[in-house]
Amino acid sequence: MNILVLGGDGYLGWPTAMFLSNSGHKVGVLDNYLRRDLAKKLSFPNLIENHSLEERVGLWNNLTEQNIDCFIGDICDYDFLSGVIKDFEPEVVVHYAEQPSAPYSMIDQQSALLTLQNNLSGTLNMIWAIKEFSPECHIIKLGTMGEYGVPDIDIEEGWIDIEHKGRKDKFLFPRQAGSLYHTTKIQDTDLLWFYVRMWDLKVTDLMQGPVYGCFTDEIRIDERLGTHFSYDEVFGTVLNRFIIQAVCGYPLTVYGKGNQIRGYLNLIDTINCIKLAAENPADKGELRIFNQFTETFSVNQLADMVIDASSKINLDVKKESIVNPRKEKEEHYYNPVHTGLKSIGLKPNKLTNEVLIEMLEFCLKYKENIIQENIFRGIKWEK
Amino acid sequence: MNILVLGGDGYLGWPTAMFLSNSGHKVGVLDNYLRRDLAKKLSFPNLIENHSLEERVGLWNNLTEQNIDCFIGDICDYDFLSGVIKDFEPEVVVHYAEQPSAPYSMIDQQSALLTLQNNLSGTLNMIWAIKEFSPECHIIKLGTMGEYGVPDIDIEEGWIDIEHKGRKDKFLFPRQAGSLYHTTKIQDTDLLWFYVRMWDLKVTDLMQGPVYGCFTDEIRIDERLGTHFSYDEVFGTVLNRFIIQAVCGYPLTVYGKGNQIRGYLNLIDTINCIKLAAENPADKGELRIFNQFTETFSVNQLADMVIDASSKINLDVKKESIVNPRKEKEEHYYNPVHTGLKSIGLKPNKLTNEVLIEMLEFCLKYKENIIQENIFRGIKWEK
Repeated sequence: MNILVLGGDGYLGWPTAMFLSNSGHKVGVLDNYLRRDLAKKLSFPNLIENHSLEERVGLWNNLTEQNIDCFIGDICDYDFLSGVIKDFEPEVVVHYAEQPSAPYSMIDQQSALLTLQNNLSGTLNMIWAIKEFSPECHIIKLGTMGEYGVPDIDIEEGWIDIEHKGRKDKFLFPRQAGSLYHTTKIQDTDLLWFYVRMWDLKVTDLMQGPVYGCFTDEIRIDERLGTHFSYDEVFGTVLNRFIIQAVCGYPLTVYGKGNQIRGYLNLIDTINCIKLAAENPADKGELRIFNQFTETFSVNQLADMVIDASSKINLDVKKESIVNPRKEKEEHYYNPVHTGLKSIGLKPNKLTNEVLIEMLEFCLKYKENIIQENIFRGIKWEK
Repeated sequence: MNILVLGGDGYLGWPTAMFLSNSGHKVGVLDNYLRRDLAKKLSFPNLIENHSLEERVGLWNNLTEQNIDCFIGDICDYDFLSGVIKDFEPEVVVHYAEQPSAPYSMIDQQSALLTLQNNLSGTLNMIWAIKEFSPECHIIKLGTMGEYGVPDIDIEEGWIDIEHKGRKDKFLFPRQAGSLYHTTKIQDTDLLWFYVRMWDLKVTDLMQGPVYGCFTDEIRIDERLGTHFSYDEVFGTVLNRFIIQAVCGYPLTVYGKGNQIRGYLNLIDTINCIKLAAENPADKGELRIFNQFTETFSVNQLADMVIDASSKINLDVKKESIVNPRKEKEEHYYNPVHTGLKSIGLKPNKLTNEVLIEMLEFCLKYKENIIQENIFRGIKWEK
């Protein structure tokens, strides 16, 4: 299939593109380097230098004799995006092209406005470009488990049947997120659901939990194909951050009580979920929603697992509760359903000591690159 | 109280401002003339020429010896908006400043993007400016009944208790709208609810139905104080449009079967609802939601009432079903609660023959200004 990956330079976008290319699909990647530019402005380097998307695509094409197409530009520019859609003729568009950081969206008015405008304008343009130039194309949109928040009822996969005063109807599962970034993902869902009903689009919305990991089979071909490994407070995800902290002797930063539970998954499972969704498309007029994670852990559990794995390679690691810079529940009910992706073939890769030790050893190799001041700067949710 | 009306040049904004001024409040109006500019581009004149906001404010201040402050500019410009908030020190902000037309939002990609960016950036900036410069200010936001769509269960006032698999929680009532414009209002609700939880803002969200009418006590002082009376397909609301059609011998344009039911209210009740909400504010940390309409009618019922009232003044009016340009249910359940505004003092003005005849006679006076081609151009929901 022709698959276009929007946000193809990202932590998840680039490994997805290589995996789909390796699986025999004709892949295009599109990116405007927004995330790189923001990280540069905030002085947050990655653990390892990442070559530009153009360079990595060139390397991939040389090493594997496959051919990924590369488009550098902004999906908020409708003429650019619709030109790419016309030329590339995608049968699937994977939409990762968003400002992806919750803390970034909470810094100030400008960062909030950038997040809102970038994420929503991009999604709207994608919907219109597909409707106008590739109406049979299947949209795979990355949502987030964070859209649901932490309700006091079981979280279903996107939808809920409500019985009220003796009558019944089916609705989107209620959403109430914990950051502006996550709120823009709810607003994306609003857009997609509206246009699916109006125009019979085919959409899969993947409600993903935080991702960890740095290896895929394709990255193992050549380390220069590696993806971003962010450990800073803004762009790093919690487990990747703990690994770095363990490696450089920084106590694991547990926010508040650490009983916040979320659903997590390995980078390898993320790219598998995308492939499975692409190869098993939604129907016309369907907004299909899957909860995309494999295991739930509390922040304390994650910290304890990192401490345990670290001890196996003689790293002495401590955890430390710090005042929570976020406004969130530190004790809550959490029971989300996640059977949809398994039903189309997902075989989860669990978070084992082996996985943790491989990540620790990878980070140890680049230990001298770690800038400790970037680990925590204390961006506060309340102003 | 100091009350700032964003969108103070609008069909509802200007009568609201005069009414609040007449009620003894210190009022400011702010507008960037977006609606006027869009109507001009689409060649949709009003029934009567409306003087600029600056002129109407000058006239009001002269005629009544009260003083409305006037700010011309765009709330999407954060420096401008926050400057006004700092100077005016509002205790209440009434937020009407949005692209208000469902058909406009469905014309093409550009009109959709303008609607999305304008409405959401404006709302986000308002929230930030209030948080930064006037955090005790009560926000009164105009939502729309259209956010709920037409679910098969009773529509509550903004919230619903859900019992699911033996557990319970309270959520925003599910929303699924019928146009992109209405979807941006859902997205506004997402923003407001997020920041209320984060920052303990005081917010009232008024879920308003379509408004009809052209008179308030203040407009009766001098007709030059009149508000926009749009009858075109884009900016006109259904009953105002039917009145114009009746006056100029155009068959009443009933979309499809005409059994679409909505909640309606008189312009006089709209401005009363705003005053009641302002004088009975929401609590800190509360998103208070009222369903703002007084009566429900189907489109056929409205048409029949206009035909009946017209016959009383010897106008022979017909209705005509036309192919529905929208994608919407033409037969549906509709039972929305609307007790909140009555509980704080609203005394509804019902849609009587007298009200209809006064509107008909007003429009008859300006019959020669009506441009029949503007009544229906057929903007389609499906592309």
